[in-house]
Amino acid sequence: MHGVPEISPAAIRGATLSRLPSAADARGELVFGEAGRHIPFEVRRFFLVHGVPEGTTRGEHAHRRLHQFLICIEGSCSVLADDGRAQQEFLLDDPTLGLHVEPMVWAAQRNFSSDAKLLVFASEIYDPADYIETYAEFLRAAAA
Amino acid sequence: MHGVPEISPAAIRGATLSRLPSAADARGELVFGEAGRHIPFEVRRFFLVHGVPEGTTRGEHAHRRLHQFLICIEGSCSVLADDGRAQQEFLLDDPTLGLHVEPMVWAAQRNFSSDAKLLVFASEIYDPADYIETYAEFLRAAAA
Repeated sequence: MHGVPEISPAAIRGATLSRLPSAADARGELVFGEAGRHIPFEVRRFFLVHGVPEGTTRGEHAHRRLHQFLICIEGSCSVLADDGRAQQEFLLDDPTLGLHVEPMVWAAQRNFSSDAKLLVFASEIYDPADYIETYAEFLRAAAA
Repeated sequence: MHGVPEISPAAIRGATLSRLPSAADARGELVFGEAGRHIPFEVRRFFLVHGVPEGTTRGEHAHRRLHQFLICIEGSCSVLADDGRAQQEFLLDDPTLGLHVEPMVWAAQRNFSSDAKLLVFASEIYDPADYIETYAEFLRAAAA
């Protein structure tokens, strides 16, 4: 309606989309990032997710200490992030888009295209104790 | 010929192919690696090369101190590595294959498929002074 601004998603705490530097020349295209700079933590682990069946939602947990930086290298997917007060959905559809997800953010990855390849940098090695697996526990911890 | 073994490429110093751990379940496939373990150095930078025109050769230099770990996430390419005494070519055609290229190895990336996406982890931030740009200089440095 005239005079009423479109409602945009609430900006949530702890999830930040950024554009990575890139360069193109006759030999192809390059996207790059430095740990501690473009990726705002020390990179101790990476993982690559691919071959995700249509309609699958991944994630649906939070981390107590882990930072993640997500880049969809091929195809597209989206990340629904929730800080316990509001939600925001981020579309990752270009290898120059990186999403930093901080600790204490409930996150789900969904809408994977059939060719999607999601690269994730993580600030810690795998630790099952770092996971918050239920949304109720996440809300209690986020309110604490 | 009978009795004559097929000549296999010389195993060179400073270039090591390894298989990264992976897991598959109903939600898709995961490939992963830890810095300091599967990737045998601290990861200070990454870059992604894609859109490489057919017939292009990239690299063709050595590094004085930089370690690299190369994974072809999508499509395929090959890496020709040279330690100053012998050459060996490595085919990267699967996201679970990682090639560690140590300092003082002359390396070229070539045979990129049109859909190739090459992910490289690097042990240092970008430093032009770390590059050895000519093969003659590389041979002198490798012999020193």
